Amino acid sequence: MSDPMDYASSGVDIDLEGAAVASLIGSLQRSSRKKGTPGAPVDLPGGFGGLIEFGDHLLALATDGVGSKLQIATAVKNWDCVGIDCMAMNVNDLLCVGAEPIAFVDYIAVPKPDPEVHAAVGASLAKACELANVTLAGGETASLPGIVTELDLSGTALGYLTKGSAITGERLQSGDVLIGLPSSGIHSNGFSLVRNIINRMGISYTDPCPFDAGFAGRELPEEPTISDVLLIPTKIYCEPVVELLNHLKTTQNSVHAVHGIAHITGGGLSNLLRLHDHLGWHIDAPMPVPPEFIWLQNAGNVTDLEMHRTFNMGLGMVLAVEQNQAVPILSYIKQFEPEATIIGTVHDKGRKVTHSNPDVFYEHY
Amino acid sequence: MSDPMDYASSGVDIDLEGAAVASLIGSLQRSSRKKGTPGAPVDLPGGFGGLIEFGDHLLALATDGVGSKLQIATAVKNWDCVGIDCMAMNVNDLLCVGAEPIAFVDYIAVPKPDPEVHAAVGASLAKACELANVTLAGGETASLPGIVTELDLSGTALGYLTKGSAITGERLQSGDVLIGLPSSGIHSNGFSLVRNIINRMGISYTDPCPFDAGFAGRELPEEPTISDVLLIPTKIYCEPVVELLNHLKTTQNSVHAVHGIAHITGGGLSNLLRLHDHLGWHIDAPMPVPPEFIWLQNAGNVTDLEMHRTFNMGLGMVLAVEQNQAVPILSYIKQFEPEATIIGTVHDKGRKVTHSNPDVFYEHY
Repeated sequence: MSDPMDYASSGVDIDLEGAAVASLIGSLQRSSRKKGTPGAPVDLPGGFGGLIEFGDHLLALATDGVGSKLQIATAVKNWDCVGIDCMAMNVNDLLCVGAEPIAFVDYIAVPKPDPEVHAAVGASLAKACELANVTLAGGETASLPGIVTELDLSGTALGYLTKGSAITGERLQSGDVLIGLPSSGIHSNGFSLVRNIINRMGISYTDPCPFDAGFAGRELPEEPTISDVLLIPTKIYCEPVVELLNHLKTTQNSVHAVHGIAHITGGGLSNLLRLHDHLGWHIDAPMPVPPEFIWLQNAGNVTDLEMHRTFNMGLGMVLAVEQNQAVPILSYIKQFEPEATIIGTVHDKGRKVTHSNPDVFYEHY
Repeated sequence: MSDPMDYASSGVDIDLEGAAVASLIGSLQRSSRKKGTPGAPVDLPGGFGGLIEFGDHLLALATDGVGSKLQIATAVKNWDCVGIDCMAMNVNDLLCVGAEPIAFVDYIAVPKPDPEVHAAVGASLAKACELANVTLAGGETASLPGIVTELDLSGTALGYLTKGSAITGERLQSGDVLIGLPSSGIHSNGFSLVRNIINRMGISYTDPCPFDAGFAGRELPEEPTISDVLLIPTKIYCEPVVELLNHLKTTQNSVHAVHGIAHITGGGLSNLLRLHDHLGWHIDAPMPVPPEFIWLQNAGNVTDLEMHRTFNMGLGMVLAVEQNQAVPILSYIKQFEPEATIIGTVHDKGRKVTHSNPDVFYEHY
C-alpha cells in the first residue's frame, strides 16, 4: 500500500496559514464607523464577522475564490464550472448568517487576456447569477503576467437581512436536530489533495473516469472523464435556504427555528465547532458519500479522519433546527432538495464532533 | 535617443483586453432580481454600472486590484502602500457615482503564506480603512502555488447613497467648471510601462532616486530610493468628496451642483469621455506634474499623448461642477485638499478632451 496522503503534505500548511491570517487580523483595527451609522460593524455573540449596520437592516459581505480547482479547469480548458464555484463559495457563506444574497462582483486575474477563457467564465458567471438570484454588479479583469501564470478567479457577494434575524448560533441548544443538504460532489475545496493523488497515480484528467461516477440525480456524459467528475460545479443553496427562512418568518412560532447554519468547505465537519463555544455535534446518519470520495480515499490511502476534515463527503450544508420544528422544516426543504435528510443532533456533552464512524472525531477546527 | 515606449509595448494589449471584457459582458444576462426589490440593478442614463436598489437607497459595489505595482513592492519587500492602493482603487470609483464607501473586503493570493507579508498587508489595510472611513468586513487569503508566483491583492468596496442623489453625468452641461484634486504620485496604474522603462534603463528599485523627487506636501526619506517614490500610496479621496457632497445636501440650490466625477486611473484623461455621450472637455490649467512623470517620460521617450492616457500626471480626480457654484465648492474642498484648483471647463463643441498642450487630444477612451 502506498504512503498515506493528507492535506498538509499536499502543499497546504494549515498552521502556517493560521499564523499568517492571525498576523493579518492582529494588524487590523476596529472600524472608525460609529455604532448606529451605516457601515458600523456588528458584533455577534458567535464571533461571526462580515455583518455591518444599515438602518433597519444588516448587510453582509463574503469574499472567496475558487482555489486550485481552477488548475484542473485550465488544464482541460473547460471553465463551465468556475463561475458557479466562485458564486457558491461566497453566497453559501452569506446564507450561514441568514442573509439573502443580492449582488456579486468578480475578480479575474490572467497572465494575458484570452477571449475564449473570458467568454467561458462569463457564461459560467451568468448561469451562477441565475442560480443564486443575484445581480452581477461589476467585475475586474486584470492582466498580471508577472504575478499569475494562469487564471485566478475570486469574487465578493453582498447579502442583507432584517435586524434581529441574523443566525448567530446563540440559540443553539442540546437536542437541536441537524438537517443535511447534499453536496453535488467535491465542490471547491480539498483540490490540492485531489491533484496530488491524481498526479501520484499518473492519471491524466482527460482519462476515462476509473470508477462508476453515477450518483443520485447527477448528470454526466455517458463516458465521463475524470475531469468531468472533478469539475462538477459546487451546489448553490440560495433557493432552499432563502425560501425556508422567508417561509419561517411568516409561520407562527418558527421565526427563529433555524439556530445555526454551516457551509461545509475547507475543514469539513470540523467547521461545525465554529458555531458554538461549548455544544457538541453527533452525526449518526451521514449523507450518502459520492463515489469520487471513496475512490480518492483508496487511491491516496487517506484516513477517514483526514477525508472528513478535507472534503464535504456528500454533505454540503448543515442546518441546526429546533427539535419540534425539524419534521416540518425537512418536509419544506425537500421541495427544493429532495435528498435532504436528518443526519444528527446537537448535545451538551462537550465541544466535539462525533460520527457513526468512530474514527471521525474533531475537537478543533 | 532610445526607441519611444508606450503602454501597449509594455505587455498590456488594451485592444485584446477590450475584446476579452466585451466577450465576458456579452455572456452576462440581465439580473433576475425584479425592479423595486433589494438587489435589482439600476439603469443609469450615463451607462454606469454597479448600482443596485435597496429600499430608499442605492448600494454600489466596486472591485479592483493593485496590479503590477505589487511587483515593485514585492521586489523591495515593502508592502506599506499596497493596502492603501487597493482601497483607493475601489473607494475612489465609488465616489464617482456619489456613493459614500462604508465597507471593504480584501482578497490575497500568495504562493505560500508568509507572516511577514500578511502582517505588512494587514497593517496597510488597517491604515486604509481609517483613511477611507470604512469597516473591514472580511477577507480571504488563498495559497495558490500553481497559479500565483507572488502576492496578488484585490478588494471590493461597498458604498451607499440615497435614491435620487446618484451622480450620473446626466446634469453635465456646457460651461461646467472642472475642479482637479491632486494625485499623490503614480497611484496604481501604468506600472507595466513604469517597470519596462526602469528595466530598460538597468536601474535597480533600491538605487538612489535619480531625480529630485520633492513635490508639494510630499513626505519622503532624506535620500529616497526610486522605489520610495514609485510606491507612494494612491490618494484616497473619501474625506473631501463625502464631506463636500454632504455639505451640498444641506445647502440651498446646490444639492445637485456636482454634475460628474471622474477618477483618473488607467486611460488617464481620456476617461473623462466616459462621463457624457456628446460633451467635450478642455483642460486649460493643468495641475503641476510630479517629477517622477517627467523623469519617466524622458527615460522612456514617451509622447505627451501616451503619458496623459497612461498616467494621472498629477490629477487624481476631477469634479465637474455647476459654473456658479465653482468658487464656493473649490473653497470648501480646499479645507481638505489645499492644492485643488480649477483646471478647465466642459463645452459642447464635440466629444473630445483637449489640453493646453495641443499634443494631448483624445476622442476615444
